[in-house]
Amino acid sequence: MAGLASGDQGPWLTPYDLDDVRRKVPMVYIEAVPLRLGPDGDLEFVGMLLGATHESGLQRSFVSGRVLFHETLREALTRHLEKDLGAMAFPRLPASLQPFTVAQYFPTPGYGFHDPRQHSVALVYAVPIDGEPAPQDDALDFSWFTPEQSQDPLLQGEMVDGHAQLLNLLLAALGKLA
Amino acid sequence: MAGLASGDQGPWLTPYDLDDVRRKVPMVYIEAVPLRLGPDGDLEFVGMLLGATHESGLQRSFVSGRVLFHETLREALTRHLEKDLGAMAFPRLPASLQPFTVAQYFPTPGYGFHDPRQHSVALVYAVPIDGEPAPQDDALDFSWFTPEQSQDPLLQGEMVDGHAQLLNLLLAALGKLA
Amino acid sequence: MAGLASGDQGPWLTPYDLDDVRRKVPMVYIEAVPLRLGPDGDLEFVGMLLGATHESGLQRSFVSGRVLFHETLREALTRHLEKDLGAMAFPRLPASLQPFTVAQYFPTPGYGFHDPRQHSVALVYAVPIDGEPAPQDDALDFSWFTPEQSQDPLLQGEMVDGHAQLLNLLLAALGKLA
Amino acid sequence: MAGLASGDQGPWLTPYDLDDVRRKVPMVYIEAVPLRLGPDGDLEFVGMLLGATHESGLQRSFVSGRVLFHETLREALTRHLEKDLGAMAFPRLPASLQPFTVAQYFPTPGYGFHDPRQHSVALVYAVPIDGEPAPQDDALDFSWFTPEQSQDPLLQGEMVDGHAQLLNLLLAALGKLA
Repeated sequence: MAGLASGDQGPWLTPYDLDDVRRKVPMVYIEAVPLRLGPDGDLEFVGMLLGATHESGLQRSFVSGRVLFHETLREALTRHLEKDLGAMAFPRLPASLQPFTVAQYFPTPGYGFHDPRQHSVALVYAVPIDGEPAPQDDALDFSWFTPEQSQDPLLQGEMVDGHAQLLNLLLAALGKLA
Repeated sequence: MAGLASGDQGPWLTPYDLDDVRRKVPMVYIEAVPLRLGPDGDLEFVGMLLGATHESGLQRSFVSGRVLFHETLREALTRHLEKDLGAMAFPRLPASLQPFTVAQYFPTPGYGFHDPRQHSVALVYAVPIDGEPAPQDDALDFSWFTPEQSQDPLLQGEMVDGHAQLLNLLLAALGKLA
Repeated sequence: MAGLASGDQGPWLTPYDLDDVRRKVPMVYIEAVPLRLGPDGDLEFVGMLLGATHESGLQRSFVSGRVLFHETLREALTRHLEKDLGAMAFPRLPASLQPFTVAQYFPTPGYGFHDPRQHSVALVYAVPIDGEPAPQDDALDFSWFTPEQSQDPLLQGEMVDGHAQLLNLLLAALGKLA
Repeated sequence: MAGLASGDQGPWLTPYDLDDVRRKVPMVYIEAVPLRLGPDGDLEFVGMLLGATHESGLQRSFVSGRVLFHETLREALTRHLEKDLGAMAFPRLPASLQPFTVAQYFPTPGYGFHDPRQHSVALVYAVPIDGEPAPQDDALDFSWFTPEQSQDPLLQGEMVDGHAQLLNLLLAALGKLA
């Protein structure tokens, strides 16, 4: 996190403030799809977190999180990857911050990807993982799936809205979509 | 703009609200570089607006604007292109919303691209223009420059912070950087 | 086509020469997916040619063709689009020659995309079409399909090897994959 | 290298054959820009080979080489990176074979990038290097340069035609172009 100009408040918001802001402007998010690559760069596994929420029950998802005020995209990627996958995941951040795709989530059901909490615009990155991810606090599990396994409709049905589409775009781009 | 779920407030913020939000989260922006292409797609001209602000005097810039709450990126691109270039510009919106690059602006001088008003994350698109842009309300002029002219250091010195870098990236990608 | 240095032979090869070269090196190809876009850039239709060959019978495909010796990619795109879609198609060539994806075709069955004639590396572009394509000499038909129609397994089964995968990647990138 | 269909000749050509083919069709090339990245993915150094030719004297270049008949792009990248940088370079091949840019080289001076040997179409990749490159047979040296050093006009003047432009495009895309 870069130093803030004097007089600015810090990047953390109270739950009340965040709730208020979320009804006024779209939030900037980063999302990271964890990949396990073979020695020649070929995709071997895609990683997903398993979490639980009151509203939706068990759900699988990629790494996803808000970009804070005055935080760079690279800082946000680093922070969320470590927060979600632990300190031993050793993600390989890309040299370029050109996203793999941009995902839009809206709070209104039936209108694009759905996120009941907010309108967000997410920059999505594919991030090779060299180490061993370990699920952190609010996650129950982290699992690797082969490209074939990841296309199981039951598995994709467990994913948060939008993430199955991101997965299928990635698989198509890597020549792995069945 | 899509219909909002009942109970939500509209996307427009009072100046007070906007000012408040801008100190709390990064703003989502779209930026569009107007291009005039030859019949075979070759870049002939790059377009820039000339505006005036109290703080910075005369400044050249590309089309740039905020994405509103519950507005899609495509809607925001359409709205800002029409607002800045008029109804006769006939921009050719891209089929894919994959941005050409992502630009980050920070309110702290000396830290990345500088925007004294806010921290913003801008999705940047190159947009071919078929019609005749006309500068609207707060712009004094709209001009086309050849790739060579656009690399004049004096001209680039008149551009808002970050836009000369976006221009040079675009010229490099199109094989036009001197 | 640019002027050739004196002493060079022209870019056209005799069938015998071409046959010989095709067993020695990979061929450079361009492929273009014809798109019909709405006023805001949204994908409305994808276009396909219907052709007939002795070996494979009726087959659907996108525009595809070889890059000649000393021909630029832009020249090859222009030439093949006009040759396959006619003079009234009015394709919108992209400003950037960054391909949408790269497709590899091999003469050995069961090894990547299959092309019995050769090994080729194809740079694939999505090309909006403003006019009215008309099938030329060796094509029987040109048809537009909605994104939904284009995902019909029967239709995709009629496509030349590799093109259904290109189509699905494009649909995924544009948020239209079912 | 995949197994070849029986009856096909192998991918290696005699010098006479290669010379012949080079006057008939464009050659498919891969090029790789070696990068040294910091722990957060930030660009620290760009790597260049120093070679010597009869015609041009000392010249700096990135990794570059021909794709053989029936060789995949990934196989060609792996082969040329090992051939030019040695077995201890440990390049990180990308998951996606979407190139960073496409470069076109022509044998006619004054017409695009110049390569007196041939017309080639090169798919260019940025490849992070984890290990220690060592110049092989026909190279005299391999050196790392900071983004600032790599923009020295004298250094760029030593690069083979086209590679300074690729370098500047990469630096612009990574926000490092002065």
